[in-house]
Amino acid sequence: MRAVDLIRKKRDSGEHTREEIDFLVAGYTRGDLPDYQMAAWLMAVWLRGMSRSELTSLTEAMLYSGQVLNHAEIPGKKVDKHSTGGVGDKTSLILAPIVAAGGLTVPMISGRGLGHTGGTLDKLESIPGFNVNLTLNDFSRVLRECGMGLIGQTAEIAPADKKIYALRDATSTVESIGLICASIMSKKLAEGIDALVLDVKTGTGAFMKKEEDAVRLAEVMVETGKRMGKKVIALITDMNQPLGRMAGHAHEVIESIDVLDGGGPADLRELSVELSAWMFFLGERTKSVEEGKRLAETMIASGRAKDKFRQCIHLQGGDPRVVEEPKRLPAARLRAEVASAAAGFVTGTNCEQFGIALAMLGGGREKKEDKIDPAVGLEFHKQIGDRVEKGESLATIHYNADAKLAEARGLIAASYQIGESAPRETPPLIRRIVGV
Amino acid sequence: MRAVDLIRKKRDSGEHTREEIDFLVAGYTRGDLPDYQMAAWLMAVWLRGMSRSELTSLTEAMLYSGQVLNHAEIPGKKVDKHSTGGVGDKTSLILAPIVAAGGLTVPMISGRGLGHTGGTLDKLESIPGFNVNLTLNDFSRVLRECGMGLIGQTAEIAPADKKIYALRDATSTVESIGLICASIMSKKLAEGIDALVLDVKTGTGAFMKKEEDAVRLAEVMVETGKRMGKKVIALITDMNQPLGRMAGHAHEVIESIDVLDGGGPADLRELSVELSAWMFFLGERTKSVEEGKRLAETMIASGRAKDKFRQCIHLQGGDPRVVEEPKRLPAARLRAEVASAAAGFVTGTNCEQFGIALAMLGGGREKKEDKIDPAVGLEFHKQIGDRVEKGESLATIHYNADAKLAEARGLIAASYQIGESAPRETPPLIRRIVGV
Repeated sequence: MRAVDLIRKKRDSGEHTREEIDFLVAGYTRGDLPDYQMAAWLMAVWLRGMSRSELTSLTEAMLYSGQVLNHAEIPGKKVDKHSTGGVGDKTSLILAPIVAAGGLTVPMISGRGLGHTGGTLDKLESIPGFNVNLTLNDFSRVLRECGMGLIGQTAEIAPADKKIYALRDATSTVESIGLICASIMSKKLAEGIDALVLDVKTGTGAFMKKEEDAVRLAEVMVETGKRMGKKVIALITDMNQPLGRMAGHAHEVIESIDVLDGGGPADLRELSVELSAWMFFLGERTKSVEEGKRLAETMIASGRAKDKFRQCIHLQGGDPRVVEEPKRLPAARLRAEVASAAAGFVTGTNCEQFGIALAMLGGGREKKEDKIDPAVGLEFHKQIGDRVEKGESLATIHYNADAKLAEARGLIAASYQIGESAPRETPPLIRRIVGV
Repeated sequence: MRAVDLIRKKRDSGEHTREEIDFLVAGYTRGDLPDYQMAAWLMAVWLRGMSRSELTSLTEAMLYSGQVLNHAEIPGKKVDKHSTGGVGDKTSLILAPIVAAGGLTVPMISGRGLGHTGGTLDKLESIPGFNVNLTLNDFSRVLRECGMGLIGQTAEIAPADKKIYALRDATSTVESIGLICASIMSKKLAEGIDALVLDVKTGTGAFMKKEEDAVRLAEVMVETGKRMGKKVIALITDMNQPLGRMAGHAHEVIESIDVLDGGGPADLRELSVELSAWMFFLGERTKSVEEGKRLAETMIASGRAKDKFRQCIHLQGGDPRVVEEPKRLPAARLRAEVASAAAGFVTGTNCEQFGIALAMLGGGREKKEDKIDPAVGLEFHKQIGDRVEKGESLATIHYNADAKLAEARGLIAASYQIGESAPRETPPLIRRIVGV
């Protein structure tokens, strides 16, 4: 088998066998296949696509390029959720404690933020002392003790994905349904889970701007997971405006704790409960999703979810007092308001721009090497459909350095669409469920 | 400007500006752009194509990545021919002496054979002592003295093409009309010529199996050359069977000398005269192609073309006595006949296979590093339309080593299609002229 022939095959729209994909992925991971051959193949895949069976082979090859966790010593089902990311999307911090409190195990391997999206690991690191770089042994111990754990991708997990992702980033081959699917699913299935709930975002703040693209990605991921013997469903959810009222690392931890406390904004609470419910159902903890919702609500109302979060923070080296005393989280020194230039109704937002403004102020990464300021944040006062007066604050910026304030403020202001009348309908939060 | 953005642009079918193409080509030639980014871009180009103006920019960027020869000190027009290659295609060895004898200058930078095709440089090297690796200074001196010279691509000539071609070879991005055009034209225009005649082969022994592909390549090359201020035309010629009766390095030199001597097979003589005629016409040596043909015939009949070849061999360090004494060329020790399994008529050949059989016997390269045995050759006795009896020899194999004889003989035999009746028409040698 020669890489050059396999590149040609994909270039000419051929379908790879499992052996061919294994040859490419294993060879590249070992370093036998040079970057330039993988780059040419990736571009051919980007442009020609992959069949479902190729995709399963690719996902499996990437999955088995590293260690697949096994939690056989922990009784019960292991479940997880993955979101394709957006602005203010902090549900992982909420549903992991809910689901662990409800009796399932949530072995969550998460990512970092890049561009306009935040990352779960970065958010957790705003908690003083919180360590996301556990060894797999320590991860296992935390899971045994409290039923949940949140770490980053270690060198042992899907090394092929790590290497291929870096190459895709440098060769404009990121936004391919097949490659995205294989990357996500290989990492998630390496967690050793029985079931996975996918939250595929669509709208102006999502990677998949169009709903049909989100649905296609969801279908491909669900099918790939099912072919690999896992229970998988996907929720297509709205990202035409931030989820909840807060974006920024410490701010999102605070808002997550609000929800675990029984408060928080309605949209965030609704989605967190819905996702938790599906995890309970797929993890066979409840007989229906409705029963799962009731269980999730109970875990919040009883304070058991909040206790679980406190316990996990403690086990991962963080300061658990942040749960009761949010002032222990980093806070920005300065604040500025973004005033509305007109009176009317919010009819839409260019949501991605909020994330870009946040990153610009230090609350996100423009490049992989960038340091994050966890105290920087945005507080959104108006949602789609809300009435706003001229000069009224649309959002509050929490910041530490003036340098980019004007630019960020301008970007945020311009991202709100203000119309004369309220939009006929506000976008439903949960658009569709794929894979039931 | 960032390479990753330019890759994305081409991936999404965008059209590059001249500055963008310069950035990519110059950056890659200097080593600032890594192989993997160029590989991804090349695959995107392969699959998305290039506009005529992009192609001109690419050709110019590659051309000016190195030295462009200037023969201002030599009076008169400089002309050349380029063939896309086939089996038994030896016209360069014939027309360069004819055209130089007729008073124009032919500064020919040629290539080596790979796969099923032979290379002019390899053929010349079967002449004892012939040196194709002249410095550009020596090349210039030879041109001044005899009006023709035949060398290989030096490090100074289109270094971008050299580097990009090696990468294309390893990434299955060779067979792209645009990339082929830029590669050929950048090298040929670096010769410092005023006019170029292209011989674009089509048929079972050509890279372009389908005539429409050959025409498309021809059109693109002609237009690119014209945009760069050169006189260019292309002949689309048949390669459904070997050109002439001989394939193999020393054998092709002998057959070329036969034509220069006024003999040789009709098809080879016809095409050599036709190509020479176009060179005379484009080089403004004659007022018409017909007059060019008469001039070519005169150069052969008078012996002046043969004298020119002898002179060039001498100036490039070769033994000029081979022209009168072909036994001074390497000869194979053994010969074997390929007998026809049936009686009938030759209705077609799988011509590429002859070249592969030849390479298999040592008379060509399977890999770039392979050594060539110049004595190995094939002598074809039957052309399309010819009658053949059962057991009669279709071809004679001249070889030195038994190892692959049986396999090669089987391949050759299987490459002849024998039918019960003669084909209604034999393919015309010159199919079409593009660019008049």
